[in-house]
Amino acid sequence: MIVGILGGGQLARMLALAGHPLGLKFVVLDPAPDACSGVVAEQVVGAYDDPQKLKLFADKVDIVTYEFENVPAESVRYLTDKLPVYPSPDALAFTRDRLTEKTMFRELGISTPEFYPINSLDDLQESVQKIGLPAILKSRTLGYDGKGQFLLKKNEDLPLAWEQLEGVPCILESFVPFSREISIIAARARNGKTVFYPVSENVHKSGILHLSTCRSDDPMQKAAENYSKLLLDKLGYIGVLSLELFHSGGSLLANEIAPRVHNSGHWTIDGAHTCQFENHLRAILGLPLGDTSAYGYCAMVNFVGRIPESKDVLAIKNAHFHDYAKEPRLGRKIGHGTVCSQREDEFGRSLEKLLALVS
Amino acid sequence: MIVGILGGGQLARMLALAGHPLGLKFVVLDPAPDACSGVVAEQVVGAYDDPQKLKLFADKVDIVTYEFENVPAESVRYLTDKLPVYPSPDALAFTRDRLTEKTMFRELGISTPEFYPINSLDDLQESVQKIGLPAILKSRTLGYDGKGQFLLKKNEDLPLAWEQLEGVPCILESFVPFSREISIIAARARNGKTVFYPVSENVHKSGILHLSTCRSDDPMQKAAENYSKLLLDKLGYIGVLSLELFHSGGSLLANEIAPRVHNSGHWTIDGAHTCQFENHLRAILGLPLGDTSAYGYCAMVNFVGRIPESKDVLAIKNAHFHDYAKEPRLGRKIGHGTVCSQREDEFGRSLEKLLALVS
Repeated sequence: MIVGILGGGQLARMLALAGHPLGLKFVVLDPAPDACSGVVAEQVVGAYDDPQKLKLFADKVDIVTYEFENVPAESVRYLTDKLPVYPSPDALAFTRDRLTEKTMFRELGISTPEFYPINSLDDLQESVQKIGLPAILKSRTLGYDGKGQFLLKKNEDLPLAWEQLEGVPCILESFVPFSREISIIAARARNGKTVFYPVSENVHKSGILHLSTCRSDDPMQKAAENYSKLLLDKLGYIGVLSLELFHSGGSLLANEIAPRVHNSGHWTIDGAHTCQFENHLRAILGLPLGDTSAYGYCAMVNFVGRIPESKDVLAIKNAHFHDYAKEPRLGRKIGHGTVCSQREDEFGRSLEKLLALVS
Repeated sequence: MIVGILGGGQLARMLALAGHPLGLKFVVLDPAPDACSGVVAEQVVGAYDDPQKLKLFADKVDIVTYEFENVPAESVRYLTDKLPVYPSPDALAFTRDRLTEKTMFRELGISTPEFYPINSLDDLQESVQKIGLPAILKSRTLGYDGKGQFLLKKNEDLPLAWEQLEGVPCILESFVPFSREISIIAARARNGKTVFYPVSENVHKSGILHLSTCRSDDPMQKAAENYSKLLLDKLGYIGVLSLELFHSGGSLLANEIAPRVHNSGHWTIDGAHTCQFENHLRAILGLPLGDTSAYGYCAMVNFVGRIPESKDVLAIKNAHFHDYAKEPRLGRKIGHGTVCSQREDEFGRSLEKLLALVS
C-alpha cells in the first residue's frame, strides 16, 4: 500500500516514520527539493497546482492524505476523481476559511469567541463597536503560526491592521480572557469509531506553539471530546483532527480546527501507546484504531529557529530528541524535544531542564 | 551525521527508523537490490567484498556500524582505516567464531556448556565419549537461526552430521537440560557507561526465535548483567550487544553473543522508554544512553515465512505491527508483532490472541 502525502515537511516525515512499520510506503508532493520527508519517502518535487506533477504523484500512490491542507481546490478535485482522499475535500473546505469554520461551530452549538465577517474598513469599524477592544482581526484563509493575524488594542490600530492584511476577506474575533489554551486530538475511523487523546495544554510564544503538556484526567476532557465529536460526525471526517480551544471561566470556546496531525500532539510519539501519526494512518486505511492513552506524564517543547545539541537534550532523564533535519530559520519549527515519565516529580525536573535549553 | 550500516535488512531498517528523529541520515551496503531498509536509507547495492562499492559506501558516511557481522575481515579493515567503526572489528572477531567465543566465556569465568573443538570425525567421536549424548555439533562460523547446527542423539548420527556440515571446523557442545532461554541486551557507551534492558525470555521454533517476553524483575537479571558486563568490558565494546543464556537449575550458562541489535530486543521499540536501536546509535555516536526500563508487560512474536494481516494484529488491544516489507519465504523473518500493557491480565489475553494468529 502506497500512501501519498500532499506536503513533505516534518508532519509527512513523522507520518512516514510511523507508517513504515505498518508495511506502508510513502510518496510526498512538495515544491521544495530539500523537503525534510525526502529521506523516508519518495518525493515528487512539484508545485501543488502543476498538472503534470499531480498526475505523476497520483500515478504512484493508492491513497492520498495531507500534511498541508491549503492545497488548491482544483488539485484536490483532480486527485479525488482518481483516488481515495482522506480527510475528504468537503471536510477540509469547512476548515480552510475561518468564517465557515466559526459558523459551523455556532450551528453545532459549540461556543466560540464572538465574530463578524470583515470585507471593508467600514465593516471593521462597525464590528469593533459591537465587540469592543481588544479584538483580533484575522485573514479568513491561509493563516498559521500567528501569521495573518492582528491584535487590535485601540481604535487607531484599525486602518493600519486593515492595510497590513492587504484588504483580504477577514474575520474579527473578540479577545477572550482565557486562563489557558488546550487542544484535543481525535482520530475517526472509516466506520465512524472515534478515539480521543488526553487534551494537550498549550503555551504559545510569538504566536508559535512553544510547549504542549499532556493532561490525562483533565477536568475539561469530556467537554472537549463532546465538541470534537460533534465536528467529526458533522464533517463525516476520517483521519486525525485537532481542535484548539480556549478555557475561559468554567467553559471551553472553540478557536480553530486543524484537519490533520497537529504539533500539539507530537508528545504522543514518545508518550502514548499509539501516536497520532500511526492513528491517522490506521484511520484512513480502515485499520482498527490504537490505544490513545498516555504512559504517564509527558510534555513537548518546540525547537523554533534553533535546535539544541542532541547530547544536551538526551542527557536529560527520559528526554527524547526529534530533529526534522531542516535548515534553521527565524520562526521555523525545526525540531522538538519530549520528556515522559511515570513519576510526576521526575517529569517536572526533566521538563524544567528541557525548557532551559530553549530559553 | 551520516551513519553507514553494513547490511540492509530489517535491523538496518529499524536502526534508521529510530535514528531519523535524532537527525541522522543513513546509507546501507547490501548486495540485494531490494533490501528492505532501502525505503528509509540510501542504499549502495554491492557485495561486502567489492572494493569499488566499499569505497563508494565509505565516501558517503561519517561512521560505520553493522546489522550483519559476517562481513569479510579485509573489508572491515579497509573501512577501519578510513572511518570510525563500532563495535570494533577486534570485538567482532571474538564473536565470529564459536570456539574463540566460548573460550573467552571460560576465561572470564562465565559458565558455558562443555565444549570441544572438532576438526575431524575422529575428534567428534572422541569428544562425544567425553560429553555424552545428546550433544550439539555446530559450525564454528556463519551459523544463525539454527543453521549450521546438528543435534546428535545417537552414535550413528555422527558420520552423517559431520558430512552435513561438510567437514568445516566445528565445535561440539554438551546438550544443556535448560528450563528456559533468556537473553540480555546491553548498550555500552564510548565512555564505558553501560545500561541493561530487562532480560527477554525466549522461545524458539525450528531453531528460529518465536516469542520474546520482557521479564522486568527477573530473578536472574543481576546474574545476566554481571556476565554481560564482563564481556563488554573485556571487548572494550561500544554499541548494543546481546548475550543469549540458558537458565539451568539455579544458574546461567552462556550460549552465544550477537554483537549487534538483536531480535529478542524488538519488544523495546514499543515497550521500553528507549529502544535498543536508538540506544545502539546513541552509544556509537557518543550520546548519553536512554532509559532501558519497560513501560509494563511486553512481548514480541516473530512472523516467520508468512505475515498476518495488519487489521487482525491491530484489532488486538495494545498490539503493534511491524512489517519488514520483505518477500515471504519459508523460514524467513518478515515481521513481528508486539503486545504491551500495564495490566498483566490484559497483556496475557492480548498475547494469547497474537500467538493464535501465527499458530
